[in-house]
Amino acid sequence: MRILLVGASGTIGQKITEALASEHVVLRAGRNGADVSVDITSPESIASMYEEIGRVDAVINASGGANFKTVPELTPELNEKGIESKLKGQINLVLLGQEYVNDGGSFTLTTGVMMDDPIPMGASAAMANGGVKAFVKAASIEIPRGIRINSVSPNIVEESWSRLGGFFAGFDPVPAARVARAYVKSVEGAQTGQNYKVY
Amino acid sequence: MRILLVGASGTIGQKITEALASEHVVLRAGRNGADVSVDITSPESIASMYEEIGRVDAVINASGGANFKTVPELTPELNEKGIESKLKGQINLVLLGQEYVNDGGSFTLTTGVMMDDPIPMGASAAMANGGVKAFVKAASIEIPRGIRINSVSPNIVEESWSRLGGFFAGFDPVPAARVARAYVKSVEGAQTGQNYKVY
Repeated sequence: MRILLVGASGTIGQKITEALASEHVVLRAGRNGADVSVDITSPESIASMYEEIGRVDAVINASGGANFKTVPELTPELNEKGIESKLKGQINLVLLGQEYVNDGGSFTLTTGVMMDDPIPMGASAAMANGGVKAFVKAASIEIPRGIRINSVSPNIVEESWSRLGGFFAGFDPVPAARVARAYVKSVEGAQTGQNYKVY
Repeated sequence: MRILLVGASGTIGQKITEALASEHVVLRAGRNGADVSVDITSPESIASMYEEIGRVDAVINASGGANFKTVPELTPELNEKGIESKLKGQINLVLLGQEYVNDGGSFTLTTGVMMDDPIPMGASAAMANGGVKAFVKAASIEIPRGIRINSVSPNIVEESWSRLGGFFAGFDPVPAARVARAYVKSVEGAQTGQNYKVY
Protein backbone atom coordinates (compact mmCIF):
# COMPACT_ATOMS: atom_id res chain seq x y z
CA MET A 1 0.00 0.00 0.00
CA ARG A 2 0.90 3.64 -0.41
CA ILE A 3 0.49 5.16 3.07
CA LEU A 4 0.60 8.81 4.07
CA LEU A 5 1.82 9.18 7.65
CA VAL A 6 1.43 12.65 9.18
CA GLY A 7 3.58 13.07 12.26
CA ALA A 8 6.13 10.54 11.05
CA SER A 9 9.02 11.99 13.04
CA GLY A 10 7.28 11.85 16.42
CA THR A 11 7.88 9.21 19.08
CA ILE A 12 4.91 7.12 17.96
CA GLY A 13 5.25 8.12 14.29
CA GLN A 14 8.74 6.63 14.11
CA LYS A 15 7.49 3.30 15.45
CA ILE A 16 4.57 3.32 13.01
CA THR A 17 7.05 3.88 10.17
CA GLU A 18 9.17 0.96 11.41
CA ALA A 19 6.10 -1.27 11.64
CA LEU A 20 4.85 -0.48 8.13
CA ALA A 21 7.90 0.33 5.99
CA SER A 22 8.96 -3.23 5.17
CA GLU A 23 5.67 -4.06 3.43
CA HIS A 24 4.38 -0.67 2.30
CA VAL A 25 5.50 2.64 0.86
CA VAL A 26 5.31 5.15 3.71
CA LEU A 27 5.18 8.83 2.78
CA ARG A 28 6.45 10.73 5.80
CA ALA A 29 4.68 14.04 6.41
CA GLY A 30 4.99 16.62 9.15
CA ARG A 31 5.82 20.22 9.82
CA ASN A 32 9.27 19.48 8.36
CA GLY A 33 8.28 16.20 6.80
CA ALA A 34 10.93 14.03 5.16
CA ASP A 35 8.68 13.49 2.11
CA VAL A 36 6.09 16.27 2.31
CA SER A 37 5.50 19.21 4.64
CA VAL A 38 2.16 20.00 6.23
CA ASP A 39 0.76 22.18 8.97
CA ILE A 40 -2.46 20.41 9.99
CA THR A 41 -3.83 23.61 11.55
CA SER A 42 -4.10 25.05 8.02
CA PRO A 43 -6.72 23.64 5.62
CA GLU A 44 -4.75 25.22 2.75
CA SER A 45 -1.61 23.37 3.82
CA ILE A 46 -3.51 20.08 4.06
CA ALA A 47 -5.01 20.61 0.60
CA SER A 48 -1.55 21.36 -0.84
CA MET A 49 -0.12 18.22 0.71
CA TYR A 50 -2.79 16.02 -0.86
CA GLU A 51 -2.32 17.72 -4.23
CA GLU A 52 1.41 17.07 -4.02
CA ILE A 53 1.24 13.39 -3.03
CA GLY A 54 -1.86 12.35 -4.97
CA ARG A 55 -3.78 9.16 -4.29
CA VAL A 56 -2.99 6.88 -1.36
CA ASP A 57 -4.39 3.73 0.18
CA ALA A 58 -4.19 4.91 3.77
CA VAL A 59 -3.80 8.10 5.74
CA ILE A 60 -2.49 7.93 9.31
CA ASN A 61 -2.21 10.91 11.59
CA ALA A 62 0.06 10.71 14.63
CA SER A 63 0.36 14.45 15.16
CA GLY A 64 -1.61 17.17 16.93
CA GLY A 65 -1.18 19.18 20.08
CA ALA A 66 -3.11 20.90 22.85
CA ASN A 67 -2.21 23.15 25.77
CA PHE A 68 -1.93 21.57 29.19
CA LYS A 69 -3.48 23.92 31.74
CA THR A 70 -5.72 23.50 34.76
CA VAL A 71 -9.38 24.38 34.21
CA PRO A 72 -9.08 27.67 36.17
CA GLU A 73 -6.04 28.60 34.01
CA LEU A 74 -7.60 27.46 30.72
CA THR A 75 -8.95 30.35 28.66
CA PRO A 76 -10.86 30.23 25.38
CA GLU A 77 -7.62 31.39 23.72
CA LEU A 78 -5.45 28.66 25.30
CA ASN A 79 -8.09 26.08 24.35
CA GLU A 80 -7.68 27.05 20.68
CA LYS A 81 -4.50 25.00 20.23
CA GLY A 82 -6.39 21.78 20.97
CA ILE A 83 -9.27 22.92 18.76
CA GLU A 84 -7.11 23.91 15.80
CA SER A 85 -4.50 21.15 15.98
CA LYS A 86 -5.58 17.94 17.70
CA LEU A 87 -9.27 18.29 16.81
CA LYS A 88 -9.80 20.23 13.58
CA GLY A 89 -6.36 19.33 12.22
CA GLN A 90 -7.23 15.63 12.33
CA ILE A 91 -10.79 16.01 11.09
CA ASN A 92 -9.71 18.24 8.21
CA LEU A 93 -7.21 15.55 7.16
CA VAL A 94 -10.29 13.38 6.59
CA LEU A 95 -12.62 15.99 5.08
CA LEU A 96 -10.00 17.26 2.64
CA GLY A 97 -8.39 13.87 2.03
CA GLN A 98 -11.39 11.61 1.40
CA GLU A 99 -11.25 12.08 -2.37
CA TYR A 100 -7.54 11.16 -2.41
CA VAL A 101 -8.01 7.81 -0.66
CA ASN A 102 -8.48 4.81 -2.92
CA ASP A 103 -11.57 2.56 -2.71
CA GLY A 104 -11.33 0.36 0.36
CA GLY A 105 -8.60 2.51 1.87
CA SER A 106 -8.49 3.89 5.38
CA PHE A 107 -7.97 6.81 7.73
CA THR A 108 -6.46 6.30 11.17
CA LEU A 109 -6.50 9.20 13.62
CA THR A 110 -5.11 9.54 17.14
CA THR A 111 -6.98 10.15 20.40
CA GLY A 112 -5.47 9.45 23.83
CA VAL A 113 -5.92 7.94 27.26
CA MET A 114 -6.81 11.18 29.09
CA MET A 115 -10.32 11.22 27.64
CA ASP A 116 -11.01 7.94 29.46
CA ASP A 117 -8.76 8.34 32.50
CA PRO A 118 -8.52 12.09 33.19
CA ILE A 119 -5.30 13.75 34.30
CA PRO A 120 -4.78 17.22 35.79
CA MET A 121 -4.32 19.84 33.08
CA GLY A 122 -5.71 17.42 30.48
CA ALA A 123 -9.18 18.89 29.83
CA SER A 124 -8.34 20.58 26.52
CA ALA A 125 -6.59 17.50 25.14
CA ALA A 126 -9.41 15.29 26.39
CA MET A 127 -11.93 17.51 24.59
CA ALA A 128 -10.04 17.10 21.31
CA ASN A 129 -9.66 13.35 21.80
CA GLY A 130 -13.34 12.89 22.57
CA GLY A 131 -14.32 14.92 19.52
CA VAL A 132 -12.11 12.84 17.25
CA LYS A 133 -13.37 9.54 18.69
CA ALA A 134 -17.02 10.51 18.17
CA PHE A 135 -16.37 11.88 14.69
CA VAL A 136 -14.65 8.63 13.68
CA LYS A 137 -17.56 6.50 14.91
CA ALA A 138 -20.14 8.70 13.17
CA ALA A 139 -18.19 9.16 9.93
CA SER A 140 -17.61 5.42 9.59
CA ILE A 141 -21.25 4.77 8.74
CA GLU A 142 -21.30 6.96 5.66
CA ILE A 143 -17.79 7.57 4.35
CA PRO A 144 -18.08 6.23 0.79
CA ARG A 145 -16.30 3.68 -1.45
CA GLY A 146 -15.54 1.22 1.34
CA ILE A 147 -13.15 3.62 3.00
CA ARG A 148 -12.67 2.74 6.66
CA ILE A 149 -11.92 5.12 9.53
CA ASN A 150 -10.59 4.34 13.02
CA SER A 151 -8.68 6.03 15.81
CA VAL A 152 -5.96 4.80 18.12
CA SER A 153 -5.97 5.90 21.76
CA PRO A 154 -2.42 5.56 23.11
CA ASN A 155 -1.51 5.42 26.76
CA ILE A 156 1.52 7.49 27.81
CA VAL A 157 4.46 5.71 26.14
CA GLU A 158 7.62 4.54 27.86
CA GLU A 159 9.76 6.67 25.53
CA SER A 160 8.03 9.86 26.80
CA TRP A 161 7.93 8.87 30.45
CA SER A 162 10.97 10.87 31.61
CA ARG A 163 9.59 14.01 29.94
CA LEU A 164 5.83 13.63 30.57
CA GLY A 165 5.45 11.05 33.31
CA GLY A 166 4.81 13.81 35.85
CA PHE A 167 1.45 14.44 34.21
CA PHE A 168 0.50 10.74 34.44
CA ALA A 169 0.86 9.79 38.11
CA GLY A 170 0.33 6.07 38.56
CA PHE A 171 -0.18 5.30 34.88
CA ASP A 172 1.53 2.22 33.45
CA PRO A 173 3.32 3.39 30.31
CA VAL A 174 3.38 1.18 27.21
CA PRO A 175 6.12 0.82 24.58
CA ALA A 176 5.51 3.01 21.53
CA ALA A 177 6.06 -0.07 19.38
CA ARG A 178 2.98 -1.63 21.01
CA VAL A 179 0.95 1.49 20.19
CA ALA A 180 2.17 1.21 16.59
CA ARG A 181 0.57 -2.25 16.36
CA ALA A 182 -2.88 -0.63 16.68
CA TYR A 183 -2.20 1.54 13.64
CA VAL A 184 -1.17 -1.58 11.71
CA LYS A 185 -4.44 -3.22 12.77
CA SER A 186 -6.40 -0.23 11.48
CA VAL A 187 -4.53 -0.09 8.15
CA GLU A 188 -4.22 -3.80 7.35
CA GLY A 189 -7.35 -5.05 9.12
CA ALA A 190 -10.97 -4.69 8.06
CA GLN A 191 -12.66 -2.94 10.99
CA THR A 192 -14.14 0.54 10.87
CA GLY A 193 -15.52 3.05 13.36
CA GLN A 194 -13.27 1.75 16.13
CA ASN A 195 -11.16 3.52 18.75
CA TYR A 196 -8.32 1.13 19.61
CA LYS A 197 -7.29 1.66 23.21
CA VAL A 198 -3.69 0.70 23.90
CA TYR A 199 -3.97 0.58 27.71
CA MET B 1 -30.84 28.27 43.87
CA ARG B 2 -30.20 30.96 41.30
CA ILE B 3 -29.87 29.11 38.00
CA LEU B 4 -28.74 30.46 34.64
CA LEU B 5 -30.35 28.50 31.79
CA VAL B 6 -28.94 29.17 28.31
CA GLY B 7 -31.27 27.96 25.59
CA ALA B 8 -34.33 28.44 27.79
CA SER B 9 -36.76 28.90 24.90
CA GLY B 10 -35.84 25.66 23.10
CA THR B 11 -37.89 22.47 23.19
CA ILE B 12 -35.81 20.99 25.99
CA GLY B 13 -35.05 24.34 27.60
CA GLN B 14 -38.76 25.01 28.18
CA LYS B 15 -39.16 21.68 29.98
CA ILE B 16 -36.06 22.37 32.10
CA THR B 17 -37.58 25.70 33.09
CA GLU B 18 -40.85 23.98 34.04
CA ALA B 19 -38.97 21.39 36.08
CA LEU B 20 -36.91 23.92 38.04
CA ALA B 21 -38.96 27.12 38.27
CA SER B 22 -41.14 26.14 41.24
CA GLU B 23 -38.18 25.66 43.59
CA HIS B 24 -35.50 27.90 42.06
CA VAL B 25 -34.97 31.25 40.37
CA VAL B 26 -34.34 30.48 36.70
CA LEU B 27 -32.63 33.18 34.63
CA ARG B 28 -33.59 32.52 31.03
CA ALA B 29 -30.82 33.25 28.52
CA GLY B 30 -30.61 32.78 24.79
CA ARG B 31 -30.10 34.64 21.55
CA ASN B 32 -33.25 36.63 22.42
CA GLY B 33 -33.32 35.54 26.03
CA ALA B 34 -36.24 36.55 28.21
CA ASP B 35 -33.88 37.64 31.02
CA VAL B 36 -30.49 38.05 29.30
CA SER B 37 -29.26 37.75 25.73
CA VAL B 38 -26.21 35.74 24.72
CA ASP B 39 -24.60 34.40 21.58
CA ILE B 40 -22.56 31.42 22.80
CA THR B 41 -20.37 31.53 19.68
CA SER B 42 -18.93 34.81 20.98
CA PRO B 43 -16.66 34.78 24.07
CA GLU B 44 -17.31 38.51 24.43
CA SER B 45 -21.07 37.92 24.51
CA ILE B 46 -20.65 35.16 27.11
CA ALA B 47 -18.48 37.43 29.27
CA SER B 48 -21.06 40.24 29.02
CA MET B 49 -23.84 37.90 30.07
CA TYR B 50 -21.99 36.80 33.20
CA GLU B 51 -21.15 40.39 34.06
CA GLU B 52 -24.80 41.30 33.72
CA ILE B 53 -26.25 38.47 35.80
CA GLY B 54 -23.50 38.10 38.42
CA ARG B 55 -23.11 35.07 40.66
CA VAL B 56 -25.25 31.97 40.26
CA ASP B 57 -25.48 28.53 41.82
CA ALA B 58 -25.86 26.63 38.56
CA VAL B 59 -25.34 27.12 34.84
CA ILE B 60 -27.24 24.92 32.41
CA ASN B 61 -26.74 25.03 28.68
CA ALA B 62 -29.44 23.56 26.43
CA SER B 63 -28.37 25.38 23.28
CA GLY B 64 -25.85 24.81 20.48
CA GLY B 65 -26.03 23.81 16.86
CA ALA B 66 -24.13 21.98 14.14
CA ASN B 67 -24.60 21.46 10.42
CA PHE B 68 -26.08 18.17 9.28
CA LYS B 69 -24.23 17.02 6.16
CA THR B 70 -22.92 13.71 4.90
CA VAL B 71 -19.17 13.19 5.28
CA PRO B 72 -18.54 13.71 1.54
CA GLU B 73 -20.52 16.98 1.72
CA LEU B 74 -18.98 18.15 4.99
CA THR B 75 -16.26 20.76 4.46
CA PRO B 76 -13.98 22.37 7.05
CA GLU B 77 -16.15 25.48 6.69
CA LEU B 78 -19.44 23.63 7.27
CA ASN B 79 -17.90 21.87 10.27
CA GLU B 80 -17.23 25.26 11.88
CA LYS B 81 -20.81 25.67 13.10
CA GLY B 82 -20.46 22.61 15.34
CA ILE B 83 -17.01 23.75 16.46
CA GLU B 84 -18.07 27.31 17.27
CA SER B 85 -21.52 26.65 18.69
CA LYS B 86 -22.11 23.17 20.12
CA LEU B 87 -18.46 22.59 21.12
CA LYS B 88 -16.65 25.84 21.91
CA GLY B 89 -19.85 27.66 22.84
CA GLN B 90 -20.51 25.18 25.64
CA ILE B 91 -16.92 24.93 26.82
CA ASN B 92 -16.52 28.71 26.88
CA LEU B 93 -19.62 28.94 29.07
CA VAL B 94 -17.58 26.95 31.61
CA LEU B 95 -14.19 28.62 31.10
CA LEU B 96 -15.63 32.13 31.30
CA GLY B 97 -18.28 31.30 33.89
CA GLN B 98 -16.34 29.35 36.52
CA GLU B 99 -15.60 32.43 38.61
CA TYR B 100 -19.30 33.37 38.64
CA VAL B 101 -20.49 30.04 40.03
CA ASN B 102 -20.80 29.83 43.81
CA ASP B 103 -18.92 27.23 45.88
CA GLY B 104 -20.54 23.85 45.43
CA GLY B 105 -22.46 25.00 42.35
CA SER B 106 -22.65 23.22 39.03
CA PHE B 107 -22.42 23.34 35.26
CA THR B 108 -24.61 21.12 33.10
CA LEU B 109 -23.90 20.92 29.37
CA THR B 110 -25.67 19.06 26.57
CA THR B 111 -24.33 16.29 24.31
CA GLY B 112 -26.58 13.96 22.32
CA VAL B 113 -27.39 10.43 21.26
CA MET B 114 -25.66 10.57 17.87
CA MET B 115 -22.21 10.28 19.42
CA ASP B 116 -23.18 6.85 20.76
CA ASP B 117 -25.61 5.72 18.06
CA PRO B 118 -24.51 7.39 14.81
CA ILE B 119 -26.97 8.74 12.29
CA PRO B 120 -26.40 9.81 8.67
CA MET B 121 -25.29 13.43 8.45
CA GLY B 122 -24.50 13.47 12.17
CA ALA B 123 -20.67 13.41 12.13
CA SER B 124 -20.19 17.10 12.91
CA ALA B 125 -22.70 17.08 15.76
CA ALA B 126 -21.24 13.82 17.08
CA MET B 127 -17.78 15.43 17.08
CA ALA B 128 -19.05 18.32 19.19
CA ASN B 129 -20.92 16.01 21.55
CA GLY B 130 -17.90 13.77 22.05
CA GLY B 131 -15.68 16.77 22.74
CA VAL B 132 -18.07 18.13 25.35
CA LYS B 133 -18.47 14.74 27.04
CA ALA B 134 -14.70 14.26 27.35
CA PHE B 135 -14.14 17.84 28.50
CA VAL B 136 -16.76 17.41 31.24
CA LYS B 137 -15.18 14.20 32.51
CA ALA B 138 -11.68 15.71 32.51
CA ALA B 139 -12.67 19.09 33.94
CA SER B 140 -14.59 17.47 36.81
CA ILE B 141 -11.38 16.34 38.51
CA GLU B 142 -9.93 19.80 38.92
CA ILE B 143 -12.64 22.45 38.70
CA PRO B 144 -12.26 24.22 42.08
CA ARG B 145 -14.44 25.10 45.09
CA GLY B 146 -16.58 21.98 44.92
CA ILE B 147 -18.12 23.02 41.63
CA ARG B 148 -19.56 20.04 39.79
CA ILE B 149 -19.85 19.55 36.03
CA ASN B 150 -21.96 17.07 34.09
CA SER B 151 -23.55 16.70 30.68
CA VAL B 152 -26.91 15.36 29.56
CA SER B 153 -27.13 13.32 26.37
CA PRO B 154 -30.71 13.48 25.09
CA ASN B 155 -32.26 11.09 22.64
CA ILE B 156 -34.38 12.65 19.90
CA VAL B 157 -37.42 14.00 21.76
CA GLU B 158 -41.05 13.31 20.94
CA GLU B 159 -41.74 17.04 20.52
CA SER B 160 -39.19 17.22 17.64
CA TRP B 161 -40.14 13.94 15.99
CA SER B 162 -42.32 15.39 13.22
CA ARG B 163 -39.58 17.85 12.25
CA LEU B 164 -36.43 15.72 12.80
CA GLY B 165 -37.58 12.11 12.96
CA GLY B 166 -36.41 11.55 9.41
CA PHE B 167 -32.82 11.80 10.62
CA PHE B 168 -33.43 9.20 13.36
CA ALA B 169 -34.79 6.12 11.61
CA GLY B 170 -35.81 3.50 14.12
CA PHE B 171 -34.99 5.58 17.19
CA ASP B 172 -37.44 5.54 20.07
CA PRO B 173 -38.07 9.21 20.95
CA VAL B 174 -38.40 10.27 24.57
CA PRO B 175 -40.55 13.05 26.07
CA ALA B 176 -38.59 16.29 26.56
CA ALA B 177 -39.87 16.35 30.14
CA ARG B 178 -37.99 13.10 30.78
CA VAL B 179 -34.80 14.67 29.39
CA ALA B 180 -35.37 17.63 31.73
CA ARG B 181 -35.21 15.24 34.71
CA ALA B 182 -31.53 14.58 33.95
CA TYR B 183 -30.74 18.30 34.21
CA VAL B 184 -32.54 18.36 37.56
CA LYS B 185 -30.40 15.40 38.67
CA SER B 186 -27.26 17.26 37.68
CA VAL B 187 -28.27 20.50 39.42
CA GLU B 188 -29.85 19.14 42.60
CA GLY B 189 -27.81 15.93 42.92
CA ALA B 190 -24.21 15.51 44.02
CA GLN B 191 -22.54 13.68 41.12
CA THR B 192 -19.84 15.15 38.92
CA GLY B 193 -18.06 14.18 35.69
CA GLN B 194 -21.11 12.30 34.43
CA ASN B 195 -22.81 12.19 31.04
CA TYR B 196 -26.46 11.31 31.70
CA LYS B 197 -27.85 9.36 28.78
CA VAL B 198 -31.60 9.71 28.37
CA TYR B 199 -32.06 6.71 26.05
